[in-house]
Amino acid sequence: MPETVEIGLGRSARRGFHLDDIALVPTRRTRGSGVVSTAWQIDAHSFELPFVAAPSDAIVSPATAAEVGRLGGLAVLDGEGLWTRYEDADAELAKLDGETQTLQRVYSRPVSPELLARRVGELRAAGHPVAVRFSPQHTADLAPHVLAAGVDLLVLQGTIISAEHVAADGPGLNLKTFIADLDVPVIVGGVTNYQTALHLMRTGAAGVIVGYGAHLGSTTHSMLGIDVPMATALIDAAAARRDYLDETGGRYVHLIGYGDMVTGGDIAKALACGADAVMLGQALATAVEAPGNGRYWDATAAHPRVPRSAAIDLGHAEHERPTLEELVAGPTSDPSGERNLFGAVRRAMGKCGYSTLKEFQKVELIVTSGR
Amino acid sequence: MPETVEIGLGRSARRGFHLDDIALVPTRRTRGSGVVSTAWQIDAHSFELPFVAAPSDAIVSPATAAEVGRLGGLAVLDGEGLWTRYEDADAELAKLDGETQTLQRVYSRPVSPELLARRVGELRAAGHPVAVRFSPQHTADLAPHVLAAGVDLLVLQGTIISAEHVAADGPGLNLKTFIADLDVPVIVGGVTNYQTALHLMRTGAAGVIVGYGAHLGSTTHSMLGIDVPMATALIDAAAARRDYLDETGGRYVHLIGYGDMVTGGDIAKALACGADAVMLGQALATAVEAPGNGRYWDATAAHPRVPRSAAIDLGHAEHERPTLEELVAGPTSDPSGERNLFGAVRRAMGKCGYSTLKEFQKVELIVTSGR
Amino acid sequence: MPETVEIGLGRSARRGFHLDDIALVPTRRTRGSGVVSTAWQIDAHSFELPFVAAPSDAIVSPATAAEVGRLGGLAVLDGEGLWTRYEDADAELAKLDGETQTLQRVYSRPVSPELLARRVGELRAAGHPVAVRFSPQHTADLAPHVLAAGVDLLVLQGTIISAEHVAADGPGLNLKTFIADLDVPVIVGGVTNYQTALHLMRTGAAGVIVGYGAHLGSTTHSMLGIDVPMATALIDAAAARRDYLDETGGRYVHLIGYGDMVTGGDIAKALACGADAVMLGQALATAVEAPGNGRYWDATAAHPRVPRSAAIDLGHAEHERPTLEELVAGPTSDPSGERNLFGAVRRAMGKCGYSTLKEFQKVELIVTSGR
Amino acid sequence: MPETVEIGLGRSARRGFHLDDIALVPTRRTRGSGVVSTAWQIDAHSFELPFVAAPSDAIVSPATAAEVGRLGGLAVLDGEGLWTRYEDADAELAKLDGETQTLQRVYSRPVSPELLARRVGELRAAGHPVAVRFSPQHTADLAPHVLAAGVDLLVLQGTIISAEHVAADGPGLNLKTFIADLDVPVIVGGVTNYQTALHLMRTGAAGVIVGYGAHLGSTTHSMLGIDVPMATALIDAAAARRDYLDETGGRYVHLIGYGDMVTGGDIAKALACGADAVMLGQALATAVEAPGNGRYWDATAAHPRVPRSAAIDLGHAEHERPTLEELVAGPTSDPSGERNLFGAVRRAMGKCGYSTLKEFQKVELIVTSGR
Repeated sequence: MPETVEIGLGRSARRGFHLDDIALVPTRRTRGSGVVSTAWQIDAHSFELPFVAAPSDAIVSPATAAEVGRLGGLAVLDGEGLWTRYEDADAELAKLDGETQTLQRVYSRPVSPELLARRVGELRAAGHPVAVRFSPQHTADLAPHVLAAGVDLLVLQGTIISAEHVAADGPGLNLKTFIADLDVPVIVGGVTNYQTALHLMRTGAAGVIVGYGAHLGSTTHSMLGIDVPMATALIDAAAARRDYLDETGGRYVHLIGYGDMVTGGDIAKALACGADAVMLGQALATAVEAPGNGRYWDATAAHPRVPRSAAIDLGHAEHERPTLEELVAGPTSDPSGERNLFGAVRRAMGKCGYSTLKEFQKVELIVTSGR
Repeated sequence: MPETVEIGLGRSARRGFHLDDIALVPTRRTRGSGVVSTAWQIDAHSFELPFVAAPSDAIVSPATAAEVGRLGGLAVLDGEGLWTRYEDADAELAKLDGETQTLQRVYSRPVSPELLARRVGELRAAGHPVAVRFSPQHTADLAPHVLAAGVDLLVLQGTIISAEHVAADGPGLNLKTFIADLDVPVIVGGVTNYQTALHLMRTGAAGVIVGYGAHLGSTTHSMLGIDVPMATALIDAAAARRDYLDETGGRYVHLIGYGDMVTGGDIAKALACGADAVMLGQALATAVEAPGNGRYWDATAAHPRVPRSAAIDLGHAEHERPTLEELVAGPTSDPSGERNLFGAVRRAMGKCGYSTLKEFQKVELIVTSGR
Repeated sequence: MPETVEIGLGRSARRGFHLDDIALVPTRRTRGSGVVSTAWQIDAHSFELPFVAAPSDAIVSPATAAEVGRLGGLAVLDGEGLWTRYEDADAELAKLDGETQTLQRVYSRPVSPELLARRVGELRAAGHPVAVRFSPQHTADLAPHVLAAGVDLLVLQGTIISAEHVAADGPGLNLKTFIADLDVPVIVGGVTNYQTALHLMRTGAAGVIVGYGAHLGSTTHSMLGIDVPMATALIDAAAARRDYLDETGGRYVHLIGYGDMVTGGDIAKALACGADAVMLGQALATAVEAPGNGRYWDATAAHPRVPRSAAIDLGHAEHERPTLEELVAGPTSDPSGERNLFGAVRRAMGKCGYSTLKEFQKVELIVTSGR
Repeated sequence: MPETVEIGLGRSARRGFHLDDIALVPTRRTRGSGVVSTAWQIDAHSFELPFVAAPSDAIVSPATAAEVGRLGGLAVLDGEGLWTRYEDADAELAKLDGETQTLQRVYSRPVSPELLARRVGELRAAGHPVAVRFSPQHTADLAPHVLAAGVDLLVLQGTIISAEHVAADGPGLNLKTFIADLDVPVIVGGVTNYQTALHLMRTGAAGVIVGYGAHLGSTTHSMLGIDVPMATALIDAAAARRDYLDETGGRYVHLIGYGDMVTGGDIAKALACGADAVMLGQALATAVEAPGNGRYWDATAAHPRVPRSAAIDLGHAEHERPTLEELVAGPTSDPSGERNLFGAVRRAMGKCGYSTLKEFQKVELIVTSGR
């Protein structure tokens, strides 16, 4: 049973822990980074690095998707983003000025089925697995276009989703039958707890996203009162993965942590809590190749009535911005922990004595008062 | 029994939790905001939105009261404020400069019974329920004037009140007999704990206010050492409501949370802790219609000897200030969480899987280390 | 048994609580401030207000001591301060520039027995009880001079003292025999825990000071690693007072809290934790009458080798500085909580339902996450 | 069994405490600093002060090593630093500009065996014990040169090391056989927990370093997710020392705390948690004699691919910088706690009632909410 605390007469609550609340504890053995592997795979697709570039127009374009693939990660194009709304997305990106109103206006144009198909074609041409994201409410309408064009992985993602959505116009997308009918694997999220994770696993999803991608500009906590203490959320979802593995006699659903990760240490802790991979957004936005040009935003920023994040300027003058390669794989001369993210992860795994991601999920954790 | 901690030899204390210390946990079901209702009612009066505009001259004038009513909330005019002390309250508002001394001077003029009656008339003319607030010490003298003029709800409110007050000149107002003799429902507060809440319920009050309206300029904690961890206070008062419901075989007393709420998330958490509605002060003070013109203060700010809050300038230049409608019901282009407050609440309820306020009081809570 | 936490294998520690960690909880009854008494007495001396002005040259001169007495408090002159080292103390005060080096130099002049006697005479002339402070190491040499001159209360005070001091040149002052031989009551401190408090009570002291007067400029925690969580320290000392009362069949030793108090709320909490009175230093230093002219320091600031606090400038331009009377008894137009300190305490007692200090020591406390 | 908390379903973690989380509690006895001894010894070498100057080029040169020895401490020269890479190290120091890139370039030159021997000679000439540090990976190659030149103590130190390292090219240095074959005592570290400490003790090490020297510019936590709550780490290592003492029937291995210590209070707390001595880096870098000229960095700052700390400028203009003697032994006119470090430690021990370091390891600790 989870630990609870009584916060008032007759009402108890669990304590949740953020990644900042914990740290890794090395064991009695250490390993050189040369004997450490960070490889993972989902369905038939293998990757050298356990990372997914988030479906944000600020970081994933057809061009940067190719570079992410070359570096060993998986990039997800936002199927409801600028590239599928506009022929000339670059022209629209140039109009963005950091104002929410501008985002709301630019994103109000409908998604074009024709562009959806064309972008999948551009992504396929780069030779890496092709992944596209839709929100649950638009999946039924839009997914067929990318499926026909040859997408490899479908990502159904909203801030907080569930396997059972009730809307004014009746039940939403039936995930179970939708997924069962597909030939490509589906990744769904975000979720925040054991039960929703388990229900989503039972829909047949190949992967479940934990968290809603909290970043510097996120206001979901302020807006809705919902917060995701990521360490607790991942550990809970890992318990769901274990129970689902048992109930199915062997189906392993991959967990992808998303939110509150900007340094190698943050990523290492998420993997230690049970993530098979992490989805990175803000952490990649300073790259010189990033279409957002040093600014970061996600899909919630353009909501027409209740925007739940701001487009934030990460404040890096152009000449100081790193390449995606330096950010992801190093080397670097920046000691902040925000570059050479997976060189750092490899070292963290080695110093803690582990050589594979799966073993690393057992590393000892310690709760600290933060620093 | 509540959780306690020993803070010194032989002396224990409970732990109290602020709204900032907790967050909401979504369940396995989600709902579209179209199937969510935020309606509530007190006595014979129904409201679309679970909110009460606080009796502060900075936000409630006869004019803004009408707008609050139109938006679906309940506005409370301060019966001891400028509109009942001065014929031309606007002229006095124009004199305020943020200095406590000025407040003390302007509020030193006596309340006029004639103006009390006239303001009730102005409020009635707008066609919404009319509510007026008095401090417990002046209720006996002043309330008859508004009752005669046709007030719908009486609000008896001080920083911290009890059902049993002892003063130098004998016992104060006997709430029980006072309320029993009235035809209109009475809301009383603020209270901070189970026992005082229960005693006030037993006086026959229709609603109990929890908290003293802590805002950015409040210094009650510094001044008096009294603090109200709102999550704990509301949960405790909800326990009193439950026990009183049982002891009376069905009298349901409404709880109104007051203090520390400036965002939709804060409000959602207060409702989740058991509030039937929230009383908002500072959160509405930036509205273009607000008489305080971007400045906020409450009744404690003008105390002649021990002022317990400052008139704070919320720092919004006129052209950036939202309308009351944008603040309360949206839409908005401000992602801070401080606008479209009840659009956000509706979404929070939906994402957590609830369709009515009463059900939402059961949502799972999690204690986080704050953000 | 006190609550402990294991901080490492085989090593446990108690948790200590600062005044900032707790708050007062009102009960079901409230009282008007007219029916509240803040009077206390020590030995044959009665005071209207439960406060002692700390023996700091920044606040207590013969002149301000008279004003403190008039307001109902007790002022303690530092027997090792400027007034007993210099004929013209004002001239030396004018030389102070906030530099520790200057303090070290000015305080290096020896104390004059002749001036000690003269200052006691000046204090007596004002007609209030006369109290002088010495450090334990100089008490044997210097105390006879003030005793002969007619001091009413002797204060033996160092940062941290004990009933059993071992020095290179043998045991220090034997407090037990020293106190037994005296005709005037003695107040000793500071202490931080149950056991030292009990031992000091057994020396025959009339009062025990809890804490070392931590203020904005204090560095004792940084320097020595010693900290005094004041709520815990006072509650522990109150337990010692209770046990000593029992073992002596009725000797009540007064507790004086000293440190971390700048607002009425801080003082109210200290009294709630068991203090019979509080010793105030920094809180009085902004007074126009204060000899430190807006700057505050205590005796540790002038130590020749290991100074443990800085002379801090409280940053109040002369024209904004309050009188001692406004600070202590009000009224005030400053809502910060730092003025009308005992008007606030009286109100805190009333709102919590208590009419005497002794009863107020039973008020319910709550642990909050601070604000 | 250590205290644990469940951070998610089925996954528990201990709580770790930083030095900032705790404070010392004085006992019923106090001692003058004249009767307090801070002496310690390791193997045949005795020291007046329990401190080791860290192997950072910013603080230890052959010249400052002599001064550290004169003051009663032990200085460790970095065997892989500038003095053993360059004939004219001062010329290279002058090139450093605070940029990591510059550090990476300057430190890319190979270590010279000839210079290693020459520096040991220079250190021997000063007449104090000679200590040199190597990283575990280069010890086998480089140590023979300093052993031949007459080093007294060998320090094998990396961020996090273990007794069992696995690298791509096979197992690393076998510490057990390496140490057994040596005539000089070996100090190894850093470690973070009981088990690694115990394993390193079993290699025959004379001393074990706890922590990786966290300082203002450290980013190991951000980079790797590894943090060392120093109070917990020292107490755990002290438990290992006790168990090893028992299993060997009397071999006492010295613990040297390293990291997060900049004030006398920090050092006193580390000693209280079981350290026999502390290794100081940043705390000494402001000395006028320091080769880093007010800037501090450690070996991790120059890593070619994953630098894990920055060279930080401690911001002291030359004329304000203290001497090493003022920093270490006082007297001082600086009340910050950062000067006269061991004068402060001596006072802390005295005020807590202890006269030797070994006894002081039993002082009572209290967990505070920090200040």
